[in-house]
Amino acid sequence: MEYNIVAKEIAQKVFKDSGLPNIGKASIREIKKLVDNLENASKVKFVRMEMGIPGLPPAQKGVEAQIESLQKGIASLYPDIEGMPILKQEISRFVKNFIDIDVNPKNCIPTVGSMQGAFASFLTCSRVNKEKTTTLFIDPGFNVHKLQNKVLGIPMETFDVYEYRGEKLRDKLESIFKTGKIHSVLYSNPNNPSWVCFTDEELKIIGELATKYDVIIMEDLAYFGMDFRKDYSHPGVAPFQPSVAKYTDNYILLISSSKAFSYAGERIAMMVIGDKLAEREYPDLKRYYSSTKFGYTMIYGTIYPLSSGTSHSAQYALWGILKSVNDGEYNFRDDVIEYGKKAKLMKEAFIANGFEIVYDHDLGDPIADGFYFTYGYPGFGGAELLEEMLYYGISAISLDITGSTRQGIRACTSLIQREEIPVLAERLALFAKDHPLK
Amino acid sequence: MEYNIVAKEIAQKVFKDSGLPNIGKASIREIKKLVDNLENASKVKFVRMEMGIPGLPPAQKGVEAQIESLQKGIASLYPDIEGMPILKQEISRFVKNFIDIDVNPKNCIPTVGSMQGAFASFLTCSRVNKEKTTTLFIDPGFNVHKLQNKVLGIPMETFDVYEYRGEKLRDKLESIFKTGKIHSVLYSNPNNPSWVCFTDEELKIIGELATKYDVIIMEDLAYFGMDFRKDYSHPGVAPFQPSVAKYTDNYILLISSSKAFSYAGERIAMMVIGDKLAEREYPDLKRYYSSTKFGYTMIYGTIYPLSSGTSHSAQYALWGILKSVNDGEYNFRDDVIEYGKKAKLMKEAFIANGFEIVYDHDLGDPIADGFYFTYGYPGFGGAELLEEMLYYGISAISLDITGSTRQGIRACTSLIQREEIPVLAERLALFAKDHPLK
Repeated sequence: MEYNIVAKEIAQKVFKDSGLPNIGKASIREIKKLVDNLENASKVKFVRMEMGIPGLPPAQKGVEAQIESLQKGIASLYPDIEGMPILKQEISRFVKNFIDIDVNPKNCIPTVGSMQGAFASFLTCSRVNKEKTTTLFIDPGFNVHKLQNKVLGIPMETFDVYEYRGEKLRDKLESIFKTGKIHSVLYSNPNNPSWVCFTDEELKIIGELATKYDVIIMEDLAYFGMDFRKDYSHPGVAPFQPSVAKYTDNYILLISSSKAFSYAGERIAMMVIGDKLAEREYPDLKRYYSSTKFGYTMIYGTIYPLSSGTSHSAQYALWGILKSVNDGEYNFRDDVIEYGKKAKLMKEAFIANGFEIVYDHDLGDPIADGFYFTYGYPGFGGAELLEEMLYYGISAISLDITGSTRQGIRACTSLIQREEIPVLAERLALFAKDHPLK
Repeated sequence: MEYNIVAKEIAQKVFKDSGLPNIGKASIREIKKLVDNLENASKVKFVRMEMGIPGLPPAQKGVEAQIESLQKGIASLYPDIEGMPILKQEISRFVKNFIDIDVNPKNCIPTVGSMQGAFASFLTCSRVNKEKTTTLFIDPGFNVHKLQNKVLGIPMETFDVYEYRGEKLRDKLESIFKTGKIHSVLYSNPNNPSWVCFTDEELKIIGELATKYDVIIMEDLAYFGMDFRKDYSHPGVAPFQPSVAKYTDNYILLISSSKAFSYAGERIAMMVIGDKLAEREYPDLKRYYSSTKFGYTMIYGTIYPLSSGTSHSAQYALWGILKSVNDGEYNFRDDVIEYGKKAKLMKEAFIANGFEIVYDHDLGDPIADGFYFTYGYPGFGGAELLEEMLYYGISAISLDITGSTRQGIRACTSLIQREEIPVLAERLALFAKDHPLK
């Protein structure tokens, strides 16, 4: 190590003080804190790619509607547990316009972020059938979803989808569903961290098997419309955001407003339950709830006791955003496509310096440019590489903590500024100088 | 029935259409819906006392601070999971100023309403010791707290405190704690629905036994400072809001901003964990969490996966309110005391017409005037009375659904307007005419 820009002694002291047993395997928030401390101690401003947080201003239509509602005094009024009727209407329009599915507004529910949506879904789904005990994750994924199951004491299974794309997915899923113990499946599409996007063929396989084995699919659409190879942003016009909702009735969609609308601060998201699933009776729910109807139980049995609904003014914000998006007045893709443009430039800098993209293909195609990408360096494990790159002022998180079976690192494209990309390139070059490839 | 103002046939059709098996035992939200339908069908505007929702405008300092934060663009920024540092500081000041206790800001945490605070507390407390399985409720109480335990599968015990006031409380509590199965106790003070307020002697008993039997006390201060017999509203000046925090280290305070600050819409509350409890190590937490430290586990193990923190702008709102309250600029009691004034007039109308206050005494004193009161009518059970009074355009909820062992009805004083009180009195007189006392 010769060309590092953070002094070895300084970094190692910060590492030691952190008390972390393995720097490279630290959680996102632990890395964040560590890098804050490294920046303070070294006076080096890091190229920060660890946090998946928006790097854009919030959707203006949301801010305006939220402020207006507060001026009218809604802060004193409990929100409707089911969500504001006008918001439910716009959510229903939104999924019609952009996924091309029909869902009754009754089954379109605002939640305190998709985090609450997922927590509520795991809790409710784990109670529908006493024979079905286990959640399946199609990994890699967002590790807090696993934390949610752990704290609730729900058993989990997982597999890394990269080895099971296309028709291979059918056999893999069927072998697990056949055990009869899976109540629900969660995956993110586009995938965090690999940015792999399921095709309609794959979603059809998932949907068919969900129906055949009576399993509920929780589709996490946190990065809605952000597979920038396609333009899913015109209301009512194909192509539409691909979704399992086209292929089974057993679905819950979790649509975040954090990334697509840069509205992470207000903790407001949409949960969309397929109409038939919502009306479905599950007698085993009686063990924990007063009702056996899935949709009613989700709202009054789970969401109500979780937080008594979702911030009233944030509901107005989401209503304002969705209305303008549904009316074709605001194209959210025009804002967030900047993430994809930065991803392209960043990946070029990595590759030019001997790095490799870990999840490099999406079936036959090169992986899309988006909110995340993954990288590795020959001869390095992921955790090891993460720690080593901190000496060069570059931070991210290891794939080890995402359920991935592959060695590498996840980079988020959101916070880095255009003018920092040359700085990143320079630091990558310094790293490469110190670690010449054979 | 002769003087009823809702026609019998109309009411009975609405009752039948509701599908409710027992009108008098319906939940708050079911009653609300039923009365909406009764109003529509009969064109009679009801005197509505069922919902415990604020009837005042939101605290202006909150609205101002919230709007200002939105104008600055905070809607795109994820809130800190632990809460904003400036808010944590003001919560710490608030409990010092108004309860006279010292709590490190680190252990002062904003939550998505006290609903989330209670849910998170039940979940975490039920994991601290594998021998301790059960939550104890000092009833009567808010029935959603029980729903929270039911959905989580946590066993519960309860008793009605009215028979165990003063020193009697010690024996009762000790007999339950001795079983060794109680991990935590929840009560509301002032009590919903009875408006009974624990004395310092009683809180001392609870605190001493919590320490002796290593039980965690969850004190729900939803109606903070609203025992209007005392004035707890001057920062740093006695008398202070009585709290178990004075008498044990094992406490979690849940302080809502819905009632005291009329900020129900934004789902923002305070969870305050005693410093020693927060630092306490519970090895059994390892079964469900990565840490064994109580405070860390509460924040990063429970609150984080529940909703990834609390609305950023709502945190600014609460900060704005608390700062002005702490600085002595805003006296929240001056606003909410209106509830107490209405309670006095309403109770007079009930008593003048032959009704009785069910929870009529608070140890030696008459019950305070506040947000709730309870009433009954000779010869009627609670559920039966509730249903009968609907014919006279008066709605409320039955004590049956609150864990009370007594027969009667809970009335909330918040929504009724001053000019409606004579209307209430007139309708009570009509009811009394139809149901003459022997």
